[in-house]
Amino acid sequence: MGKRIHNFNAGPAALPLPVLVEMQSELLDYKGSGMSILEVSHRSKWFDDVINEAVERTRRLLGLGDAFDVLFIQGGASLQFCMIPMNLSVEGKPVAYLNTGTWSTKAIKEAEIQGKDVRVIASSEDRGFSYIPKDFTVDPDAAYLHFTSNNTIKGTQWARFPDAGDVPLVCDMSSDIMSRPFDVRPFGLIYAGAQKNIGPSGTALVIIRKDMLERTPDHLPTMLKYTTFSGKNSMFNTPSCLVIYTVNLVLKWLEETIGGLEKMEQINREKGSILYDFIDASSFYKGTADVDSRSLMNVTFRLPNEDLEKKFVAEALEQGLGGLKGHRSVGGCRASIYNATGVEAVKDLVSFMTEFERKEG
Amino acid sequence: MGKRIHNFNAGPAALPLPVLVEMQSELLDYKGSGMSILEVSHRSKWFDDVINEAVERTRRLLGLGDAFDVLFIQGGASLQFCMIPMNLSVEGKPVAYLNTGTWSTKAIKEAEIQGKDVRVIASSEDRGFSYIPKDFTVDPDAAYLHFTSNNTIKGTQWARFPDAGDVPLVCDMSSDIMSRPFDVRPFGLIYAGAQKNIGPSGTALVIIRKDMLERTPDHLPTMLKYTTFSGKNSMFNTPSCLVIYTVNLVLKWLEETIGGLEKMEQINREKGSILYDFIDASSFYKGTADVDSRSLMNVTFRLPNEDLEKKFVAEALEQGLGGLKGHRSVGGCRASIYNATGVEAVKDLVSFMTEFERKEG
Repeated sequence: MGKRIHNFNAGPAALPLPVLVEMQSELLDYKGSGMSILEVSHRSKWFDDVINEAVERTRRLLGLGDAFDVLFIQGGASLQFCMIPMNLSVEGKPVAYLNTGTWSTKAIKEAEIQGKDVRVIASSEDRGFSYIPKDFTVDPDAAYLHFTSNNTIKGTQWARFPDAGDVPLVCDMSSDIMSRPFDVRPFGLIYAGAQKNIGPSGTALVIIRKDMLERTPDHLPTMLKYTTFSGKNSMFNTPSCLVIYTVNLVLKWLEETIGGLEKMEQINREKGSILYDFIDASSFYKGTADVDSRSLMNVTFRLPNEDLEKKFVAEALEQGLGGLKGHRSVGGCRASIYNATGVEAVKDLVSFMTEFERKEG
Repeated sequence: MGKRIHNFNAGPAALPLPVLVEMQSELLDYKGSGMSILEVSHRSKWFDDVINEAVERTRRLLGLGDAFDVLFIQGGASLQFCMIPMNLSVEGKPVAYLNTGTWSTKAIKEAEIQGKDVRVIASSEDRGFSYIPKDFTVDPDAAYLHFTSNNTIKGTQWARFPDAGDVPLVCDMSSDIMSRPFDVRPFGLIYAGAQKNIGPSGTALVIIRKDMLERTPDHLPTMLKYTTFSGKNSMFNTPSCLVIYTVNLVLKWLEETIGGLEKMEQINREKGSILYDFIDASSFYKGTADVDSRSLMNVTFRLPNEDLEKKFVAEALEQGLGGLKGHRSVGGCRASIYNATGVEAVKDLVSFMTEFERKEG
């Protein structure tokens, strides 16, 4: 094994080392099958156990009970942007969206392409998506209210989810799913690309309240209907077996090594405090999000100028701290500190930041 | 490393052992990055090299030249069943299909769901899809002619592809892509779920002639347009990085270890001869496909009765020969002998079959 770095990538992102070690150890012979997990049939008992475990772990971790189905659908969150209005809009009713950045904007665009009656009821675009909107009214007739729980590019996050009354919440949790416990009851659908908190890229996790399945129109293409996945335990066709297998190992680590979402949230809060307290105390580093809106997953900050930012990112990498460059659309710096990035990594980052400020500040 | 079996699974299926060994060796530290290939950004130089290599290897192996784009799209062949009529049908023109089994039937159904003018110009359903149709006429006005080059369930394969004149061929090559060289020029689009000949499940390889991209209607959802993938080297959103990485390793093995598609075809013909010659000479085993239509990828056969078939499959597995059960929809036995299943595996299978016949015949 070579030297591992501290990985602050925004996604695909760090995975827990024990997950990679387990994958590696059984890659040529999965549990005595004489085959790799990549080579077993998706209809075999081996893979059936994998997908069922992944579903059950998701149920337990989020406290879903029986009211929800847990699905794995390829195509990432971007395909969900399309499938949601196709499946969940209701004839004669508007669909409501909250716009907190690039990903919300893309979700809104896909509903518009389909000619839905889209109402953007609040947006933080006026200040460069640097905050989470507070004042908005949800039309009680809306088919759903869509929002993005965490915004990777601008580093904002909903600390408390919007209250939409009886209107089902639909949420893109790609970048903070499984980072904290929450009450699932107001949600009609939750989706998340796996490649930040729960695995490698190549699948979306979709959690759908069973009553929402009744909305799927009959005439949709088979692979674009939630009912197709729901009726076949995500195996109408061959799913992304290797990716689901890895997701299951991450969920196992979350349950058995970390001890569940309360514990995970404690750790994430600790990591966030270490980094934000340091930035708040510094005049060299400057956070870009409003304090009450900032994200525990993606910590965005600027240095006094772009040359210093470039130098910062390059020297950090030399010190084994990778992925600190901001998103190409906004520049600056960003430390993504998802579940698999530990407290030690954040402490090492703060040490480096301290030293860099001392040297360059 | 545990004991490996001979894997005759229909898909997901055997992968070349050197591919798995390479994956395993670099799983914790990809080429000195200090990260797993699962953890690097899809926008990084590491992954950029991977996807570009996979595209270039595909170009070289199939002799694509510059007239085609090579895309990786999640959702398997089943999502392509939907995307093809959405993108490639032409207002006022029919779409033509050849029906050679379950997968063709599903492709046809998706075009019908979209209300396209579907013409099934030939079908082998009259004799249980046990042969490849020979007599049919292609309407020269058709937008495309769709067919399935190899039929995994019934064990049939097009030895020579249909002649459709100037009508572009659209082909599902999921189960025989890269098993033999062929002339790509008549094809408008070729697609293949990766999980048989070129990798694990979780991506389709889509090869599209550039002029076909002009047909994509503007109003389609973004993730359902071929132009979205073509314009961004398959990275409009995060692709299935781990799966594409594995596909690239399989293509590398095909180029560098096997030596290309002519060599691969020789080996596949040798494997097919060994197995079919044995079955043809036996009165105990009986092939299910017409001789001139049978597949070099999936060899389907029956034993005198179902009890013997069950016993055959179970005893074979005890001898380290796995995956010999026929598809659940048709029963019987099936040996899938894709690229990664070697001549030795087929010889061992024939030895076992000989012994089983001696004992039970």
